[in-house]
Amino acid sequence: MSITKEDISQWFKSLQDDICQQLENADEKANFQEDPWERPGGGGGRTRVISDGNVLEKGGVNFSAVNGKTPVNILQALELEEADFFATGVSIVLHPNNPWVPIIHMNVRYFEMSNGIWWFGGGIDLTPHYVNKDEASFFHNSLKNICDNHHADYYKRFKTWADEYFYIKHRKETRGIGGIFFDRLGAQEGSKEDLFNFVKEVGKGFAPIYTRFMKDNKSREFSQNEKNWQMLRRGRYVEFNLVWDKGTKFGLDTDGRTESILMSLPPQANWVYDYNPEENSKESETLSLLKKDIDWVKDN
Amino acid sequence: MSITKEDISQWFKSLQDDICQQLENADEKANFQEDPWERPGGGGGRTRVISDGNVLEKGGVNFSAVNGKTPVNILQALELEEADFFATGVSIVLHPNNPWVPIIHMNVRYFEMSNGIWWFGGGIDLTPHYVNKDEASFFHNSLKNICDNHHADYYKRFKTWADEYFYIKHRKETRGIGGIFFDRLGAQEGSKEDLFNFVKEVGKGFAPIYTRFMKDNKSREFSQNEKNWQMLRRGRYVEFNLVWDKGTKFGLDTDGRTESILMSLPPQANWVYDYNPEENSKESETLSLLKKDIDWVKDN
Repeated sequence: MSITKEDISQWFKSLQDDICQQLENADEKANFQEDPWERPGGGGGRTRVISDGNVLEKGGVNFSAVNGKTPVNILQALELEEADFFATGVSIVLHPNNPWVPIIHMNVRYFEMSNGIWWFGGGIDLTPHYVNKDEASFFHNSLKNICDNHHADYYKRFKTWADEYFYIKHRKETRGIGGIFFDRLGAQEGSKEDLFNFVKEVGKGFAPIYTRFMKDNKSREFSQNEKNWQMLRRGRYVEFNLVWDKGTKFGLDTDGRTESILMSLPPQANWVYDYNPEENSKESETLSLLKKDIDWVKDN
Repeated sequence: MSITKEDISQWFKSLQDDICQQLENADEKANFQEDPWERPGGGGGRTRVISDGNVLEKGGVNFSAVNGKTPVNILQALELEEADFFATGVSIVLHPNNPWVPIIHMNVRYFEMSNGIWWFGGGIDLTPHYVNKDEASFFHNSLKNICDNHHADYYKRFKTWADEYFYIKHRKETRGIGGIFFDRLGAQEGSKEDLFNFVKEVGKGFAPIYTRFMKDNKSREFSQNEKNWQMLRRGRYVEFNLVWDKGTKFGLDTDGRTESILMSLPPQANWVYDYNPEENSKESETLSLLKKDIDWVKDN
């Protein structure tokens, strides 16, 4: 039996359920609120948001499955005149209260057109307010294990791709410590079954990794200075998402559902003119680690 | 004597001095801190920032005069192969503490190329957290008076231009109540002397208008609810500046000085998923007034 778009969409929907459950269990206070929506052009989604939790201050775990006429920019890139499209995915951003718990982003998605073209995309990346080298190494090793189960090249390729993608050009900083990012993995890359199996493992890998960071750090004490630093790092997160993130830009340009797209923004972000942390502080150490091409697997 | 680029740049520099003085007088507490900088490609600027004032929580009044090879996108738009350029201007954004004092933005600028092409641009626009119809009318009438001294069409043209420019497409809202915006006013539009006189009056008009809003509202009491609303409106300001503002985008894309460009961002901004104010509240009234094509001059 070949895999249909309904199979994939159904699996993503159950992934959303599963992740929300695991996050609620780890938060021990807040529950996700569901906001179902329909897209005028076809399809819809289930936006689920959480706020004011023990650990999670604001976040979203969104599922969508939409269809219609393929957007012009995709048609142009593929030199096509016209085609219908179907796109489904799960997209997550979580902003924790405690500055010792990192911000995380995860996305898995599938796209196909009426002419038979299809691909998967997605990834997981981590944005610690303070980089903890052990956690960074655990994070990258976890992703590498997932990748290595499917292709010997995946981790290296997709880790480099994340470094390039999550780059705040005007700050000369990466958004965080990266992770993996991949897009347009289609028939030239492998069978639909194999790629779907890989994407499933990425999706299932998310909750165990992040709930570990929640549990390990949620009770750690923090100072007002550390909270202030968190607010500045969230400012950088806003800058990346609104200036450079191609997914956000595409959504806002093409009349996507604004509230679902911008659920990625933090509850609060601050800006201070030309703020530079003291030399040899833990803030300046974090800045020194927001660079491309750090080998986190090797470093531990 | 014809007007030189040095004349214009010198006048802008003294405008910066004059505005900073008037704002400090009205704030009665904070002073501007100057940060001089040089541009690797040629020229430089004086960034001046203010923070933690009685009235002004964070803001900047920047002067710059830069020169070098004309950026590729301008050359392409003008179908030119290459040319040197000179650009000078004053750019202001002020974020007040008190939600009853509006956010304001002002810019005056002059651009010329070695092939003889030149133009002026600029404008003033107001972003109240709560729209006060009397203040909106005073603001637009003040701008209309400035415009009417120079050309009968200016106010109508530049008011419409501001409505179009300061539009947050993904929210279907204007950033605030607009004002005037103009760009590329060159030889086809009038003599350099006449246009410079217009731009001078816009520049000189700024401080009297804004210090009036500061004085009238700085002591007005506000609730935590009103403060929360201010933080959400600042979130929209961030969204406009980072997603849609062509000036910000151009600066960040072309390796402009990031800290000077992003001095426009507020000290703090908040986001709440799908926040909708109560019907008939003053917050929903403000939203209903964030539309294009409101005739503020006529309405009072």
